[in-house]
Amino acid sequence: MQNFNYHVPTKILFGKDKVTETAKEIKEHGSRVLLTYGGGSVKRIGLYDQVVNQLRENDLFFVELSGIQPNPRITSVREGVKLCRDNQIDFILAIGGGSVIDASKAIAAAVNYEGDAWDFLMQKARVENAVPLGTVLTLAATGSEMNGNAVITNEETREKRGMGSDQLRPKFSVLDPTYTFSVNKYHTAAGTVDIMSHIFENYFAPADGTFVQDIIAESILKTCIKYGPVALVEPENYEARANLLWAGSLALNGLTLTGKKTGDWATHGIEHEVSAIYDLTHGAGLAIIHPVWMKYVLSVETSSKFAQMARNVWNVEEPDDMKAAEKGIAAVREFFNSLGMPATLTDAQIPGEHFEEMGKKACIFGKIGSFKRLDAADVVAILKKAL
Amino acid sequence: MQNFNYHVPTKILFGKDKVTETAKEIKEHGSRVLLTYGGGSVKRIGLYDQVVNQLRENDLFFVELSGIQPNPRITSVREGVKLCRDNQIDFILAIGGGSVIDASKAIAAAVNYEGDAWDFLMQKARVENAVPLGTVLTLAATGSEMNGNAVITNEETREKRGMGSDQLRPKFSVLDPTYTFSVNKYHTAAGTVDIMSHIFENYFAPADGTFVQDIIAESILKTCIKYGPVALVEPENYEARANLLWAGSLALNGLTLTGKKTGDWATHGIEHEVSAIYDLTHGAGLAIIHPVWMKYVLSVETSSKFAQMARNVWNVEEPDDMKAAEKGIAAVREFFNSLGMPATLTDAQIPGEHFEEMGKKACIFGKIGSFKRLDAADVVAILKKAL
Repeated sequence: MQNFNYHVPTKILFGKDKVTETAKEIKEHGSRVLLTYGGGSVKRIGLYDQVVNQLRENDLFFVELSGIQPNPRITSVREGVKLCRDNQIDFILAIGGGSVIDASKAIAAAVNYEGDAWDFLMQKARVENAVPLGTVLTLAATGSEMNGNAVITNEETREKRGMGSDQLRPKFSVLDPTYTFSVNKYHTAAGTVDIMSHIFENYFAPADGTFVQDIIAESILKTCIKYGPVALVEPENYEARANLLWAGSLALNGLTLTGKKTGDWATHGIEHEVSAIYDLTHGAGLAIIHPVWMKYVLSVETSSKFAQMARNVWNVEEPDDMKAAEKGIAAVREFFNSLGMPATLTDAQIPGEHFEEMGKKACIFGKIGSFKRLDAADVVAILKKAL
Repeated sequence: MQNFNYHVPTKILFGKDKVTETAKEIKEHGSRVLLTYGGGSVKRIGLYDQVVNQLRENDLFFVELSGIQPNPRITSVREGVKLCRDNQIDFILAIGGGSVIDASKAIAAAVNYEGDAWDFLMQKARVENAVPLGTVLTLAATGSEMNGNAVITNEETREKRGMGSDQLRPKFSVLDPTYTFSVNKYHTAAGTVDIMSHIFENYFAPADGTFVQDIIAESILKTCIKYGPVALVEPENYEARANLLWAGSLALNGLTLTGKKTGDWATHGIEHEVSAIYDLTHGAGLAIIHPVWMKYVLSVETSSKFAQMARNVWNVEEPDDMKAAEKGIAAVREFFNSLGMPATLTDAQIPGEHFEEMGKKACIFGKIGSFKRLDAADVVAILKKAL
């Protein structure tokens, strides 16, 4: 087990109607709020009105940034930064899923930074003096509600990049499972894949003696396997939605990474290049690529870890590691298929173009992955196998 | 799943030599330190010198409170409170296991409180304006390093009681597995039982749909089952010590309780009455009482949860819930026995006296337990079965 720091001060307010505590939490940190959200769904489910009324009743000044899209754009971030500066904003409240939260984090990072927000994504600047933020989550998927990471797309350069800082961990996050009742089948499935993919990224990583972390990771996978299908057929099943929602936060708040030097994250890197160009739903892209990545990096050296997943998560009874690993990877693919996710890029109507560009951009800062190091040619090979 | 708040801001510094970061962390919160510890072990392993040198090098003023005993006494707490007041202490650093940490929390709570520290234990006062504290942990057991709870003994009245407040969560805790290398077999075993017992207290509690919490709880139990025996025969096995240490913190930081209204905690309550009088090691007392409690509360209504533990943790293959439950409870007893823990009060040389007093004191605030409500007569019955 590697040395680690674990520090997750985000306060989680979990359950039905916990949103009523939002204003109280905001007041611990600020009084002039930027309210961020995406399209109409937060209005449709009544959440927007509920929050806005609460802000007014508590005499909290607020301005709004709406229309934040999936695969959130740097242009939205820049717009938010300007709004914050023009209105002396001292707190950002994100209402939505990962895209809204991620955009809000990039805004929070850039408000007190003199350069352009994209600098953080290009590793040209470090986050200092970020504006505090909180979230009201509406999708079980991202984990962004309990970590310091954000992924932003630059639509001009067709790049999608990540940034991270402990300063960007939300001060609080409201997790009410009922807000996810209206999430449709496709996005429920994609969210479930996203949670599992976050687990995979830290599970399939160089590690030694991280038993407790790995068995907790396997537990979160089993939670997704149990409740993902339930949520698809019973969208208002509170137990299923609640377990998925809490699993999503636990999957990526740092817990499953403790004791490991680094996660792998090659699959996320590759998927980002695809969805930067094709605006594919992130979880759907991961459903296509993660099993392909698994097959690609499977070797005598890596087989024991895949076999561990196969036996502990998918109940594969097979003494030979390589055979067990193959069965485990097949089980992942079958499960994603059973959720109705695309299995290939072709299924998602993505043609075999731009692969060279994607490979090059995925490796812009050098080789990617830690479980197995991959270069641009590997990325292209994986994309071709994903067709 | 019940609504919940989850807020664990304690910063964990985990791994070999992480103690070197102690002074830096203290300086975030204070400059005048009360250093608390127990007997000679922290000096014997060189930890005391390391910390004291670091405080001196960083010009941090400090006074010491040593000699804090297992089952820490209210007299030590009062002594600490006086030291804090006399020296304008603004930070408490506890070096040791649960006893030292718990005493330090009670001191932290009482410094700025006008009444007597015991008031907190008698539920006569609430914690307000606590002095911040940090810990350097030397035993995998308590979980106190990541929560806001403390248990203190009043040697005059022969009472052992608990208190809790989010204000008492340590600001940081240093967890270096190598400090636990020198823990002897008996206390290693007792610590492992303590961790498992903390899991049991929140696992066997009224709950509905807390799948992800329960499967994580089962994972922590499996970690103890795997590594407890290893640590007994290979005390310097880093992997075993590290997994037990991190499991101990995760077992009682609130994670496994999320989504449940309350844990059970009857077994802890009963054990506290025994060790208040006989000064038995807490984990050894739990090893005696927890399986007896399980048998006592086993019924048609509770059998499914015990069966769940039996199947998921002890690999019991038995379709009938009641039979599976019995096998699971037997497995717990066998495992504790295999660690060399006493199986009965008689084994621990505790006679069948004072049971009426223990029953009465355990229920001083009313019935105990949530999985099954127990009165003083139940407590006496359990103690008799534990003989």
